[in-house]
Amino acid sequence: MTEHTDTDSTTDASTDQPTVRHIGLLLFDQVEELDAVGPWEVLACWTLLHPEDGWAVATMSLDGTPVTGAKGLSIGAQRSFEDAPHLDVLIHPGGEGTCRLQQDAEHLDWVRSRRGTTSLMTSVSTGSQVYAAAGLLTNRRATTHWASLNLLSELDPTVRTDVDARFVDDGDLITSAGVSAGIDMALHLVARLAGPDRAREVRRGIQYDPRPPI
Amino acid sequence: MTEHTDTDSTTDASTDQPTVRHIGLLLFDQVEELDAVGPWEVLACWTLLHPEDGWAVATMSLDGTPVTGAKGLSIGAQRSFEDAPHLDVLIHPGGEGTCRLQQDAEHLDWVRSRRGTTSLMTSVSTGSQVYAAAGLLTNRRATTHWASLNLLSELDPTVRTDVDARFVDDGDLITSAGVSAGIDMALHLVARLAGPDRAREVRRGIQYDPRPPI
Repeated sequence: MTEHTDTDSTTDASTDQPTVRHIGLLLFDQVEELDAVGPWEVLACWTLLHPEDGWAVATMSLDGTPVTGAKGLSIGAQRSFEDAPHLDVLIHPGGEGTCRLQQDAEHLDWVRSRRGTTSLMTSVSTGSQVYAAAGLLTNRRATTHWASLNLLSELDPTVRTDVDARFVDDGDLITSAGVSAGIDMALHLVARLAGPDRAREVRRGIQYDPRPPI
Repeated sequence: MTEHTDTDSTTDASTDQPTVRHIGLLLFDQVEELDAVGPWEVLACWTLLHPEDGWAVATMSLDGTPVTGAKGLSIGAQRSFEDAPHLDVLIHPGGEGTCRLQQDAEHLDWVRSRRGTTSLMTSVSTGSQVYAAAGLLTNRRATTHWASLNLLSELDPTVRTDVDARFVDDGDLITSAGVSAGIDMALHLVARLAGPDRAREVRRGIQYDPRPPI
């Protein structure tokens, strides 16, 4: 199912240089800001501190222009869909904009085509609704924002939702709970891709010892 | 010390309409992305869900143009310093850019002038270094990113640092620990400005039941 291209390999045979594996962070209008920037912070910390690990993260939007978040913040995209490199990992955040995207045939086609070439598809919050609408969650374990768990089951009754998990790692698919859970999911992603020591280092870097005051 | 203008009051006598109190979220080049977007998410959730509370939050940069974060993300500003309204609360995030700002006489003057008119000055992570350099932390209790606690004491030996706190509420000044601690600080801010029920509602909205996986 996964299409292997030369950029999948860890070295480029023609130059013997390590090639870079790419994580694409999807942006779209009405993306929930923290859904995107939580994982961004975690993954950018890791990849910039440790370029020797051979991973890079970049934001991308359909046409490469900035998007306006669900709460009104403008966030810039570094790539368009067209000029994005081959992705090894896709992160699909959630937010109000997913209500539109889950009914957008062109976007769902794009998601399905990513599934064909991207080893690891991940989502934050209601990003998993889009995956469900695209048919990616059939008979899979998954989660979403607590307020959207019913909707996820309506979109695909075969999804086995986990209402307690911060994120669900189902192999080539990782979905996470609402908004801030994307930070936990991204730390898990670092641990999975580069080992727990790296993840611990990033956690310490962003001083992620959360203590909600209320 | 605080200059009271008509926008400080909760109603505008000429129209009997509730006036809006403003929270300004400072953006600058090399701001740490999550330092800014963590509090943004919390405060925008609250103010958009409950406009009747009479608060608004907006991002601002010196000239109102987008900034490039410490990890390379472009974030848009909604206001310039010049066109920003009277601020009741300022949030000064941290990030690599504070090394420059804490030596920027013009920026320090601006911070001191904000202190003269803004009831509540807050910071995230190394934002407090800028406050220290501006002389705002003399004999105050404060914190910063764990890796910058020594630097804070060097900038102002009278600062009483709290190495364990996620944030330090010292009355008209709230400082927080590194990066992700801005989320905890912002929830405290909602509780302080609008009550614990509001803060709990926002916490539930962003599903902030953190469980770091490593």
